[in-house]
Amino acid sequence: MKRIAFLVIAAAAVAGFISSTAPASGHADGATAPIFGITIPPGYRDWKLISVAHEAGNNNDIRAILGNDTAITAYREEKLPFPDGTIIARLAWSYVPSEENNKVFGQAQSFVAGSPINLQLMVKDSKKYTATGGWGFAQFKDGKPADEALLKTCFPCHEPAKTRDFVFTRYSPSP
Amino acid sequence: MKRIAFLVIAAAAVAGFISSTAPASGHADGATAPIFGITIPPGYRDWKLISVAHEAGNNNDIRAILGNDTAITAYREEKLPFPDGTIIARLAWSYVPSEENNKVFGQAQSFVAGSPINLQLMVKDSKKYTATGGWGFAQFKDGKPADEALLKTCFPCHEPAKTRDFVFTRYSPSP
Repeated sequence: MKRIAFLVIAAAAVAGFISSTAPASGHADGATAPIFGITIPPGYRDWKLISVAHEAGNNNDIRAILGNDTAITAYREEKLPFPDGTIIARLAWSYVPSEENNKVFGQAQSFVAGSPINLQLMVKDSKKYTATGGWGFAQFKDGKPADEALLKTCFPCHEPAKTRDFVFTRYSPSP
Repeated sequence: MKRIAFLVIAAAAVAGFISSTAPASGHADGATAPIFGITIPPGYRDWKLISVAHEAGNNNDIRAILGNDTAITAYREEKLPFPDGTIIARLAWSYVPSEENNKVFGQAQSFVAGSPINLQLMVKDSKKYTATGGWGFAQFKDGKPADEALLKTCFPCHEPAKTRDFVFTRYSPSP
């Protein structure tokens, strides 16, 4: 029994799913998103950074794009298509001006991450998700998955990025 | 000799300094920044995410703030002051509109990270950096450190955040 527990832990660690500070590293309440059957990967908040972005308009968010180890390796080695097991996580927060920072800069110029908006995931499984380019899509807010109608809009939006395996975000070189 | 090598590697791994993909995980050419004697910590690009921000004005950047394990633990446990050994890294990229993304959204709303601007570091050592609140400051561009004159401006700017141990960035809760 001990050996089985060890193997499970070891396998999870290899998959990058173990966090030394699990409670703070992301929701993981076990809820499963519709259509693609995706759950929140434990410890996703500890994943490495791919890039950052700001969406104005209706989104009005500031976001970080993180990847599990499979994703990061593929990005750094510029390997396309992304291999099965790749997970890309997009974390969005409200886009808020920082009065505190503006005071220091002496002008209104600073925008920071406010309250969490939602988490989006792209999960690569070329056999399971053949109808959607090999990708499963999910969105969670406070640990609760978005409905089927919303998830049906994901792949059509990602189709213009077909030459980059349907992934818009590029890996940002290190400064 | 083998044992010494192992100890060095183990110590580096504990410090979070080992990257499985070192070449892509950040400049580390050994240049030392003036005043505080700080070098670029190898593997900083692999550190966990604290938050993201956008600075308009002269900066015109989009940025990610990452922390080594000591920093992340202190943030999550809401421990102040940050313990010695804390390193906070601010990675900035040029703030550029994404025509590609805008097409998908059907309007101009998307801003992404362009070319790397620079890397800034805050390193906590309460004994070494007593004159500057226990923090050493550094800035690197393409692996080259900024000069003394620039680094002298860091601490005065951070003083308004004294109640948060001179650190402006707050930890962003996981969506």
